[in-house]
Amino acid sequence: MKVVIDTLGGDYAPFEIIKGAVNAQKKHDDLSLILCGKEDEISECLGKLKYDKTRIEIVSAPDLISNDEIPTVAIREKKNSSLAVAFDILKKDDDVIGLVSAGSTGAILTGGFLKIGRIKGVSRPTLCPFLPTKKGGYVLVADCGANMDCKPINLCHFALMANEYYKERFGKENPRVALLNVGTENHKGNDLCHQVFPLMQQLDINFVGNMEARDIMSGDYDVVIADGFAGNVLLKSTEGALKIMMGEVKKSIKSNFFARLASVFMLGAFKNLKKTYDFNSYGGSPFLGCKKLIIKSHGSSKAKAIEVSIDEIITLKNKNLNYRIEKAIENAKINIEE
Amino acid sequence: MKVVIDTLGGDYAPFEIIKGAVNAQKKHDDLSLILCGKEDEISECLGKLKYDKTRIEIVSAPDLISNDEIPTVAIREKKNSSLAVAFDILKKDDDVIGLVSAGSTGAILTGGFLKIGRIKGVSRPTLCPFLPTKKGGYVLVADCGANMDCKPINLCHFALMANEYYKERFGKENPRVALLNVGTENHKGNDLCHQVFPLMQQLDINFVGNMEARDIMSGDYDVVIADGFAGNVLLKSTEGALKIMMGEVKKSIKSNFFARLASVFMLGAFKNLKKTYDFNSYGGSPFLGCKKLIIKSHGSSKAKAIEVSIDEIITLKNKNLNYRIEKAIENAKINIEE
Repeated sequence: MKVVIDTLGGDYAPFEIIKGAVNAQKKHDDLSLILCGKEDEISECLGKLKYDKTRIEIVSAPDLISNDEIPTVAIREKKNSSLAVAFDILKKDDDVIGLVSAGSTGAILTGGFLKIGRIKGVSRPTLCPFLPTKKGGYVLVADCGANMDCKPINLCHFALMANEYYKERFGKENPRVALLNVGTENHKGNDLCHQVFPLMQQLDINFVGNMEARDIMSGDYDVVIADGFAGNVLLKSTEGALKIMMGEVKKSIKSNFFARLASVFMLGAFKNLKKTYDFNSYGGSPFLGCKKLIIKSHGSSKAKAIEVSIDEIITLKNKNLNYRIEKAIENAKINIEE
Repeated sequence: MKVVIDTLGGDYAPFEIIKGAVNAQKKHDDLSLILCGKEDEISECLGKLKYDKTRIEIVSAPDLISNDEIPTVAIREKKNSSLAVAFDILKKDDDVIGLVSAGSTGAILTGGFLKIGRIKGVSRPTLCPFLPTKKGGYVLVADCGANMDCKPINLCHFALMANEYYKERFGKENPRVALLNVGTENHKGNDLCHQVFPLMQQLDINFVGNMEARDIMSGDYDVVIADGFAGNVLLKSTEGALKIMMGEVKKSIKSNFFARLASVFMLGAFKNLKKTYDFNSYGGSPFLGCKKLIIKSHGSSKAKAIEVSIDEIITLKNKNLNYRIEKAIENAKINIEE
């Protein structure tokens, strides 16, 4: 099986991207890589690494889609961009099971939606990153920005897809699925919540009701469903607050002589903390609901994150995730289309 | 002038509420208090405090509206509740300039909306709490949960009202007003953002564009505008993440012998940090746009928070906030009603 990699997207492209891909290759004997990007740069990077030449293909696609470009325009018009070419390969080659990119989120979503297309029955694919919880597990947020204005059916599909993904990705039966809301009581929320709540109750998932934003990392929920706007606000404000607090802790320590002295003994403890709550150390976010597997790695991904993203694509393929999603939506169809 | 106080709402009612009110009275010679609640309890609390008897009135209103009750029903049906009675007094007595309550947010919003009514021209009043920023100032979020589904005109009014409030409350000319969005680029967002963005540009405020949720405490913004659902998610996820991080820092320290030992020297630094980011230490959130001044104090308010809330009502009255809001909306009318 093959995985196609966009080597130009991300802050540490191309070397860290290529290094991560090569590291993944070493672990999977049946994995071939297709690296899209600037040929000479890729060759140069590979020259510094040990890898199996028979299982690597380089495809010239020297243009980069930046984060500032309008995704729909860029994907269509930048035909020689690493991402557009990677999507073309993903679409045409049946042996290619998935794509990994640390590039423009918007362009990845557009590429997945327009070039690869949706799994049968899926109204909207969803981007769903996960966050660490204080109990040690992970919580998935679907959707986090792929879909701005959503209908109730979209949120039901997010729930069904994320539920299947969580089961396979984290090996947990009956993940606890919640609806993001302004309070936990059943009657809370905006019009969308009012419409979605009773539909969620009908789905064949472990729907545990509404969740308040402050409890996202409580460890009491596995999957949280929201429209892409609210999900994005949830994710980014959490990320922002964690970052600020880490900075403030450092500042507090530095402001006091004894604290500064004492902090030497605490470096290890703080390092662990930083690792747990550093979003960049995780693989990436799946873009669920497309006909092939797509992982959006964080823009600041280093080799490890890319390696983990490729691992994940192989795992999800082996577990037939997309087939499970199709079946879950097919079986739920009657109940949620009112 | 008089301020009416709901003595039954809040975790530390009635004593801390009454103590805070009495402390405010001491600072303002022309301030009279009307305390609504259980007469005997109020008298008992007052017995423990020093205060000017000629400027305190006790009104019997022994019922409590709890957070679990449906606000619209409770405010209508619990006629002898401390909050409903307080609103009746606020409405009828021209000398009463404002109301402070640490009780049910929903009931306070309902009471303000239904019993007091809106300032002329205001489409929807807004609840707008403020958060500390890492640069030492404050950022106001309007709306934070009073209005779930909003139209563009509502967000424009939030901006105009919060802008006037910020100027008077924090003494800052031209507060930087931003729109909560999923990215900073002008074209980002959901339908509501697309409609609101050009309207904001037309308003006579210092509109600085879109803000991402992760930058809420950056200190680069003074006022952030959102519909009540997204604003609520923004506020609560920030609050939740800060709390978790404080807990994790403590846990990290405890897990290591040397760190535990060293932490003794750092207690002062952490205490300062906790104080800065403890939302409960601030006064309360104004419910802007009603004909009289209403402050919702945090549920866990102690005396200081109540005192500050009363101070604020006096300040805002002296600065003619409601008149300024009416004028701001009147002057902007032509531009924003398309």
